[in-house]
Amino acid sequence: MATRRRTSRDIRTANRYEVLRQIIAESPTSRQELAAATGLSLATVATLVGELLELRLITEVGFEDSTGGRPRGLVAVNASGGALIGVDLAETYVRVELFDLALNTVARADEDVPPGGSRPEQLVARVAAAVGAVTARAGVAGARVLGVGVSVPGQVDRDSGVSEYAPNWDWHDVPLLDLLAEHLAHPLYLDNPLRACAVAEQWFGAARGRGDAVVVNLGTGVGAGLVLGGGLHRGVSNSAGEWGHSTLVLDGRPCHCGDHGCVETYVGAPGIMHNLRELSPGSALLHPGDQTATVEALARGVAAGDPVAREAVRHTARYLGAAVAGLVNLLNPEVVVLSSWVAATLGEPLLHEVREAVARHTLRRPAAATEIVLSPIPTDPVCLGAATFALEGALSSSSSSSSSGRRSRTAASS
Amino acid sequence: MATRRRTSRDIRTANRYEVLRQIIAESPTSRQELAAATGLSLATVATLVGELLELRLITEVGFEDSTGGRPRGLVAVNASGGALIGVDLAETYVRVELFDLALNTVARADEDVPPGGSRPEQLVARVAAAVGAVTARAGVAGARVLGVGVSVPGQVDRDSGVSEYAPNWDWHDVPLLDLLAEHLAHPLYLDNPLRACAVAEQWFGAARGRGDAVVVNLGTGVGAGLVLGGGLHRGVSNSAGEWGHSTLVLDGRPCHCGDHGCVETYVGAPGIMHNLRELSPGSALLHPGDQTATVEALARGVAAGDPVAREAVRHTARYLGAAVAGLVNLLNPEVVVLSSWVAATLGEPLLHEVREAVARHTLRRPAAATEIVLSPIPTDPVCLGAATFALEGALSSSSSSSSSGRRSRTAASS
Repeated sequence: MATRRRTSRDIRTANRYEVLRQIIAESPTSRQELAAATGLSLATVATLVGELLELRLITEVGFEDSTGGRPRGLVAVNASGGALIGVDLAETYVRVELFDLALNTVARADEDVPPGGSRPEQLVARVAAAVGAVTARAGVAGARVLGVGVSVPGQVDRDSGVSEYAPNWDWHDVPLLDLLAEHLAHPLYLDNPLRACAVAEQWFGAARGRGDAVVVNLGTGVGAGLVLGGGLHRGVSNSAGEWGHSTLVLDGRPCHCGDHGCVETYVGAPGIMHNLRELSPGSALLHPGDQTATVEALARGVAAGDPVAREAVRHTARYLGAAVAGLVNLLNPEVVVLSSWVAATLGEPLLHEVREAVARHTLRRPAAATEIVLSPIPTDPVCLGAATFALEGALSSSSSSSSSGRRSRTAASS
Repeated sequence: MATRRRTSRDIRTANRYEVLRQIIAESPTSRQELAAATGLSLATVATLVGELLELRLITEVGFEDSTGGRPRGLVAVNASGGALIGVDLAETYVRVELFDLALNTVARADEDVPPGGSRPEQLVARVAAAVGAVTARAGVAGARVLGVGVSVPGQVDRDSGVSEYAPNWDWHDVPLLDLLAEHLAHPLYLDNPLRACAVAEQWFGAARGRGDAVVVNLGTGVGAGLVLGGGLHRGVSNSAGEWGHSTLVLDGRPCHCGDHGCVETYVGAPGIMHNLRELSPGSALLHPGDQTATVEALARGVAAGDPVAREAVRHTARYLGAAVAGLVNLLNPEVVVLSSWVAATLGEPLLHEVREAVARHTLRRPAAATEIVLSPIPTDPVCLGAATFALEGALSSSSSSSSSGRRSRTAASS
């Protein structure tokens, strides 16, 4: 196993990302403002801005009103200079979004995955068709698509573009990017939803400008994307973040992973249904076999003051808070972000209960240093994050000959 | 809260550490060998070696036997060029060790802390006396001591040298380095045992050359020192690693932190006594009120084939394995190191059971990427790590005007 150590090139790449992030967040802006916002020297910022201009990711847009002194040149993101595509291959649906370079959604395609329709070739054909559809709908020439980021649940090998293990579909070592490259000519990037959500928060959400952040992904599955020391923490085999299978209740509920008492069995959507069933087996809130409907019913129930709904959310938050407290104690992050559809649906009432539960389970000082917030990202963070991997890929591949994590059609079919 | 982001200076410092680590591990060595071992360019290595020579931490020791070609200059650690002192301020004892620059122990002083003897002024006086004693015993002039690293349990503020909270002594915001500076003229560095053990493994033990490593500290208290991306992970308020207070058994055993079911209550030395008592209340292995004697009796019992001892270790490993599996799933490290006196005392039989338990609780692929080992460091890793902080301080302070984490007598008393 090769040693992973940060190098000067990593720092240069991270600085490039940070300057572009700042320009996307606040356009137009000057090199001076960028230096102040990022803490980088004006000389470094000037070099990085020059590179971004050359890549046509940003443009010069005139000069700042000067109050005496030399006028300052302004730059802005070149939103229409290209397009990025994010693909969220989820358990029950495929979502494809096309973004401009300011990462605004321009076009979207959603498709349900019918039961029995999750063989790799079937999903690949759906993705390829959806990518074609959003590109046509957005009126974007294929050549202007800088890349397609694909998120697939489970464990992935980014470098080879292989889905090593996707438990819900029982996929083993599926060469997903090679299959996709038979349909798509764009550079392709593979990763999983945990890391897609983390990178989305890092670029556009609550982790922006934070050195250490944990993005807790609450959906059908549960995980934690880690931003540490200003970068995404991947681990030695790109599988960091499998927090959903940490033991919370030794010998507790059976989990589909084969173990017992995993965090996911208490706070993932099926776990929340379990919590509700334990509390009130005949509850009208329960929609057997339909996680989404049940979680939505719970959210409506809480809003309407339904005591069973409130108690079910409190129960869930009690589990979630104990587990999140473990992350706070272990990692001492600046922020914990609750992300994905369960967090978005249950919203503030869940957040409130989780904060109280975390406070009960953490040491006082680390707890005081950590904010706990809901994701502020209004769209699908997985699509956004997947597109961001494509943007990072475009930024990295232009600065080096290394194509780690990047597959072009030519490379893939060779 | 300031953003913590890695900078080019961090990389330079990390590279300097790595080159010195490699020279300490293998002296004499050539610049070419160092470049091969570290993956750094020969030019970078040559610059760093020049800096280390100037600091007199290493010396030129002649030339390699040449098989034709130009002879290669050899360098070696300048063991006698200075001294480093490590202080392990533990719950029940104070240990002070003086090291040469190859980090060999030259002199040691141990003192018990009697009950009621843990007021800050009392401990500070003991430490100062012990530092004086080891310096005299080693025949080292005070001026040649490059620094004194001090480890104190609990939460510490490195920059201000304050022990923010030490639960066992009920210390709150004790200005430990200021108090010590009244007695000692050496540069002083404060941190806690979790991070001391982690940095000891990173420099001299099982984490050497590894990008991501977890050092699990098993003593009276329990924690996890984290080496991530090649550097020590401290978190936003330097309190990362408080893994002992993660929930393993929701609503389980009461913990002295005020919570229930914390990892520490099952696998710390008092937790192990609890496990044994549950299994066999009248066991002769149990030495009430004496953790050390009990853990040693267990180790002897296992070696002698005592079924109760074996079962108690298996029970403990079952808890520990489930908790360590959570670290493996979350962080995907290259190595997990079991460190501190409980791990050293229970040794291989504990390791064997822990490996089996971890395998039962981890996902297959992350588990396959992680080694689990006992700490190979033969001496007190806390003293060694504390001295290493002083070495790192000497290396950093000479390269910049920043004195973060470093307090000289002058600075402290101003």
